Amino acid sequence: MKVRVNVMLKEGVLDPQGKAIGHALDVLGFHGLGEVRAGKLIEIEVPAQNEEAAVEQGEAMARELLANLVIEDFTVEVVS
Amino acid sequence: MKVRVNVMLKEGVLDPQGKAIGHALDVLGFHGLGEVRAGKLIEIEVPAQNEEAAVEQGEAMARELLANLVIEDFTVEVVS
Repeated sequence: MKVRVNVMLKEGVLDPQGKAIGHALDVLGFHGLGEVRAGKLIEIEVPAQNEEAAVEQGEAMARELLANLVIEDFTVEVVS
Repeated sequence: MKVRVNVMLKEGVLDPQGKAIGHALDVLGFHGLGEVRAGKLIEIEVPAQNEEAAVEQGEAMARELLANLVIEDFTVEVVS
Protein backbone atom coordinates (compact mmCIF):
# COMPACT_ATOMS: atom_id res chain seq x y z
CA MET A 1 0.00 0.00 0.00
CA LYS A 2 1.10 3.56 -0.55
CA VAL A 3 1.10 6.02 2.34
CA ARG A 4 1.69 9.73 2.25
CA VAL A 5 3.47 11.43 5.14
CA ASN A 6 2.87 15.19 5.35
CA VAL A 7 5.40 17.08 7.45
CA MET A 8 4.80 20.71 8.42
CA LEU A 9 6.48 23.08 10.84
CA LYS A 10 4.54 23.39 14.09
CA GLU A 11 2.30 26.38 14.69
CA GLY A 12 4.42 29.22 16.00
CA VAL A 13 7.68 28.00 14.50
CA LEU A 14 9.09 30.63 12.16
CA ASP A 15 8.86 29.54 8.52
CA PRO A 16 11.20 31.64 6.37
CA GLN A 17 10.59 29.49 3.28
CA GLY A 18 6.85 30.05 3.55
CA LYS A 19 7.43 33.78 4.06
CA ALA A 20 9.61 33.91 0.94
CA ILE A 21 6.99 32.07 -1.11
CA GLY A 22 4.28 34.44 0.14
CA HIS A 23 6.39 37.45 -0.81
CA ALA A 24 7.15 36.05 -4.28
CA LEU A 25 3.44 35.36 -4.86
CA ASP A 26 2.58 38.93 -3.88
CA VAL A 27 5.18 40.26 -6.31
CA LEU A 28 3.62 38.08 -9.03
CA GLY A 29 0.23 39.71 -8.47
CA PHE A 30 -1.41 37.40 -5.94
CA HIS A 31 -2.38 40.03 -3.40
CA GLY A 32 -4.18 39.67 -0.11
CA LEU A 33 -2.79 36.27 0.80
CA GLY A 34 -2.70 35.29 4.44
CA GLU A 35 -0.20 32.95 6.01
CA VAL A 36 1.87 30.78 3.68
CA ARG A 37 3.59 27.71 5.11
CA ALA A 38 5.85 25.24 3.39
CA GLY A 39 6.31 21.58 4.23
CA LYS A 40 7.38 18.29 2.74
CA LEU A 41 5.50 15.25 1.66
CA ILE A 42 6.89 11.77 1.27
CA GLU A 43 5.07 8.98 -0.52
CA ILE A 44 6.17 5.48 0.46
CA GLU A 45 5.13 2.07 -0.84
CA VAL A 46 4.93 -0.01 2.36
CA PRO A 47 4.56 -3.79 2.69
CA ALA A 48 1.36 -3.70 4.76
CA GLN A 49 -1.69 -5.97 4.56
CA ASN A 50 -4.25 -3.35 5.57
CA GLU A 51 -4.71 0.38 5.97
CA GLU A 52 -4.21 0.33 9.73
CA ALA A 53 -0.84 -1.39 9.46
CA ALA A 54 0.18 0.96 6.64
CA VAL A 55 -0.61 4.05 8.73
CA GLU A 56 1.27 2.56 11.69
CA GLN A 57 4.35 1.98 9.57
CA GLY A 58 4.10 5.49 8.15
CA GLU A 59 3.88 6.96 11.65
CA ALA A 60 6.88 4.95 12.82
CA MET A 61 8.94 6.15 9.86
CA ALA A 62 7.86 9.74 10.46
CA ARG A 63 8.85 9.56 14.12
CA GLU A 64 12.21 7.93 13.43
CA LEU A 65 13.37 9.81 10.34
CA LEU A 66 11.00 11.93 8.32
CA ALA A 67 9.92 14.53 10.88
CA ASN A 68 11.89 16.48 13.45
CA LEU A 69 9.36 16.32 16.28
CA VAL A 70 10.90 19.26 18.10
CA ILE A 71 9.75 21.67 15.41
CA GLU A 72 7.57 19.64 13.04
CA ASP A 73 4.19 17.90 13.09
CA PHE A 74 3.19 15.14 10.71
CA THR A 75 0.10 13.39 9.42
CA VAL A 76 -0.08 10.05 7.64
CA GLU A 77 -2.72 9.04 5.11
CA VAL A 78 -3.21 6.01 2.91
CA VAL A 79 -3.15 6.95 -0.77
CA SER A 80 -3.81 3.57 -2.37
CA MET B 1 -9.91 29.84 2.82
CA LYS B 2 -6.84 27.69 3.14
CA VAL B 3 -5.63 25.63 0.19
CA ARG B 4 -2.92 23.03 0.09
CA VAL B 5 -0.78 22.66 -3.03
CA ASN B 6 1.00 19.30 -3.30
CA VAL B 7 3.93 19.26 -5.70
CA MET B 8 5.55 15.96 -6.74
CA LEU B 9 8.07 15.02 -9.39
CA LYS B 10 6.39 13.49 -12.44
CA GLU B 11 6.37 9.72 -12.92
CA GLY B 12 9.63 8.71 -14.55
CA VAL B 13 11.62 11.70 -13.33
CA LEU B 14 14.57 10.55 -11.23
CA ASP B 15 14.08 11.39 -7.54
CA PRO B 16 17.42 11.21 -5.70
CA GLN B 17 15.94 12.66 -2.50
CA GLY B 18 13.30 9.93 -2.42
CA LYS B 19 15.95 7.31 -3.10
CA ALA B 20 18.07 8.61 -0.23
CA ILE B 21 15.10 8.56 2.14
CA GLY B 22 14.27 5.00 1.09
CA HIS B 23 17.83 3.92 1.72
CA ALA B 24 17.92 5.59 5.13
CA LEU B 25 14.65 3.92 6.12
CA ASP B 26 16.04 0.54 5.10
CA VAL B 27 19.14 1.12 7.22
CA LEU B 28 16.86 2.01 10.15
CA GLY B 29 15.11 -1.35 9.87
CA PHE B 30 12.15 -0.59 7.59
CA HIS B 31 12.72 -3.36 5.07
CA GLY B 32 10.75 -4.28 1.99
CA LEU B 33 9.72 -0.75 1.08
CA GLY B 34 8.83 -0.04 -2.53
CA GLU B 35 9.23 3.28 -4.24
CA VAL B 36 9.79 6.35 -2.07
CA ARG B 37 9.16 9.77 -3.56
CA ALA B 38 9.63 13.17 -1.99
CA GLY B 39 7.69 16.31 -2.75
CA LYS B 40 6.70 19.64 -1.27
CA LEU B 41 3.49 20.96 0.10
CA ILE B 42 2.53 24.58 0.47
CA GLU B 43 -0.43 25.78 2.54
CA ILE B 44 -1.78 29.18 1.56
CA GLU B 45 -4.53 31.31 3.07
CA VAL B 46 -6.25 32.75 -0.01
CA PRO B 47 -8.85 35.53 -0.19
CA ALA B 48 -11.55 33.45 -1.92
CA GLN B 49 -15.32 33.43 -1.35
CA ASN B 50 -15.86 29.77 -2.17
CA GLU B 51 -14.00 26.50 -2.65
CA GLU B 52 -14.02 26.70 -6.43
CA ALA B 53 -12.36 30.12 -6.45
CA ALA B 54 -9.85 28.96 -3.83
CA VAL B 55 -8.82 25.95 -5.92
CA GLU B 56 -8.53 28.16 -9.02
CA GLN B 57 -6.24 30.57 -7.18
CA GLY B 58 -4.17 27.67 -5.88
CA GLU B 59 -3.81 26.25 -9.39
CA ALA B 60 -2.77 29.62 -10.79
CA MET B 61 -0.12 30.01 -8.08
CA ALA B 62 1.14 26.48 -8.70
CA ARG B 63 1.46 27.11 -12.43
CA GLU B 64 3.19 30.45 -12.02
CA LEU B 65 5.55 29.78 -9.14
CA LEU B 66 5.16 26.71 -6.97
CA ALA B 67 5.62 23.90 -9.49
CA ASN B 68 8.11 23.44 -12.31
CA LEU B 69 5.72 21.96 -14.84
CA VAL B 70 8.53 20.48 -16.92
CA ILE B 71 9.35 17.95 -14.22
CA GLU B 72 6.63 18.34 -11.58
CA ASP B 73 2.91 17.67 -11.22
CA PHE B 74 0.68 19.35 -8.67
CA THR B 75 -2.67 18.90 -7.01
CA VAL B 76 -4.67 21.52 -5.11
CA GLU B 77 -7.10 20.81 -2.29
CA VAL B 78 -9.10 23.01 0.06
CA VAL B 79 -8.12 22.42 3.68
CA SER B 80 -10.53 24.78 5.46
